[in-house]
Amino acid sequence: MKRVEILAIGKEILKGQTLDTNSHWLARRLTALGAYVGRIAVPDDDPEAIARELKRSLEDGAQVVITTGGMGPTFDDKTLEGVAWAFELSLEVHPWALEFVRGRYREFYQKGFVDSPDLTPEREKMARLPTGAEPLENPVGAAPVVMLEAEGAVIFCLPGVPREMRPAFEEVVLPRLKEILGVGVYLEEEVDTGLKDESALAQRIEKVMKKVPGVYLKSKPTRFGTDVRLKVVLSAAGPDEAEVRRRMAEAKDLLSVLLSSP
Amino acid sequence: MKRVEILAIGKEILKGQTLDTNSHWLARRLTALGAYVGRIAVPDDDPEAIARELKRSLEDGAQVVITTGGMGPTFDDKTLEGVAWAFELSLEVHPWALEFVRGRYREFYQKGFVDSPDLTPEREKMARLPTGAEPLENPVGAAPVVMLEAEGAVIFCLPGVPREMRPAFEEVVLPRLKEILGVGVYLEEEVDTGLKDESALAQRIEKVMKKVPGVYLKSKPTRFGTDVRLKVVLSAAGPDEAEVRRRMAEAKDLLSVLLSSP
Repeated sequence: MKRVEILAIGKEILKGQTLDTNSHWLARRLTALGAYVGRIAVPDDDPEAIARELKRSLEDGAQVVITTGGMGPTFDDKTLEGVAWAFELSLEVHPWALEFVRGRYREFYQKGFVDSPDLTPEREKMARLPTGAEPLENPVGAAPVVMLEAEGAVIFCLPGVPREMRPAFEEVVLPRLKEILGVGVYLEEEVDTGLKDESALAQRIEKVMKKVPGVYLKSKPTRFGTDVRLKVVLSAAGPDEAEVRRRMAEAKDLLSVLLSSP
Repeated sequence: MKRVEILAIGKEILKGQTLDTNSHWLARRLTALGAYVGRIAVPDDDPEAIARELKRSLEDGAQVVITTGGMGPTFDDKTLEGVAWAFELSLEVHPWALEFVRGRYREFYQKGFVDSPDLTPEREKMARLPTGAEPLENPVGAAPVVMLEAEGAVIFCLPGVPREMRPAFEEVVLPRLKEILGVGVYLEEEVDTGLKDESALAQRIEKVMKKVPGVYLKSKPTRFGTDVRLKVVLSAAGPDEAEVRRRMAEAKDLLSVLLSSP
């Protein structure tokens, strides 16, 4: 089992302004991928604190570190500075990242989300990456996801807003992560629930994931003409196929019991 | 400002089975007490991992460390072992703690919560404290709160169940913490909201704490005959009286604006 650690970066968590749901979501997602989440840490918006926590993760033997937050344009977004600090790298504007940021702001301007499409220094900052880091697409927001290989580990830096973080993980990190984790088997199954009420289903899904943390469940509304039917997609991964199948079966059994009770 | 760090101990958080609301609640509470929450970390149920994280907190210069979780009778409750490991202390049955645990299980047995009042080895474990540690009352549960002074810092170990952790903090840790933090001023004010619906009030309280993290708000239902009226208690602390009064005024103003809008 590969060790993964999560760093949720930001003063808003340390002040109790924001409840850190990102780490919870990632922990659940990673566990179902067969990874061992060894530690979660929340450092302040300070390059030194971020670097220190990152180095501690490598000391712990983490093969993958996922950070959330601190990727935006404001003065207190310090994640990339912290990553650079940890490995004594400099920050350089990355051409692909710069084009990505520029394109996003053009788009946001056309949609009326921002007042100007200009690449201000604050916006340009999001394209200043630690030397050797690779920018990846952010499916929703303006700040590229950043991947860096250093000292035998892979670091992924994701945005902090959950509605940006989740698709960035699913669409951009997940395919790479599966390779890194060397996931032997990845199983995915769809179950028709017979339910139409998403809130009734959400409770049952929550129960299954609490009981069987090795399987990730996601509801999937499917339309048949004007009719909506809710399906559930179950996924699980790990090196040992028999063990993954056992987890899957346990989750499916529990789900079916819960679906047949009111 | 004194630096406080929070360790939320437990595999259930790392597996994504439990959302760690304790750290969020403590961070909010500590910030309103004028403390600086410098870091939150989640180690696994493993004495070595707990000890490592605790030592890292002292390296960071934390004057106070608050741990939650891992205090119960089951095999994976490892917090006290981890604390002992960090400071190379042995674990010894503490007579007062043992009487406390015994008394609680007698009480639980009389209430029908448990099948036997016996002090099994598992239950006795909750009274095995690191040498020199002081047991404190747990207002709700069976595991004593534990306080230890070591290497210039004070460590408080609290239970992990939120409905035990919160009263343990308020009733047992808070009075000691105020002394340690050297809180110059502690202000508390009551505001009559005119509201009767707790859910409508909860949303407004949440907004104020998000906006003004330096003030803690708590609703307080007050009965007048058969009539219930909701009050809010605001509290804030810090070394500088003028600054604490400013925070208080900001929170009160915002609350009154929110109370006068639907």
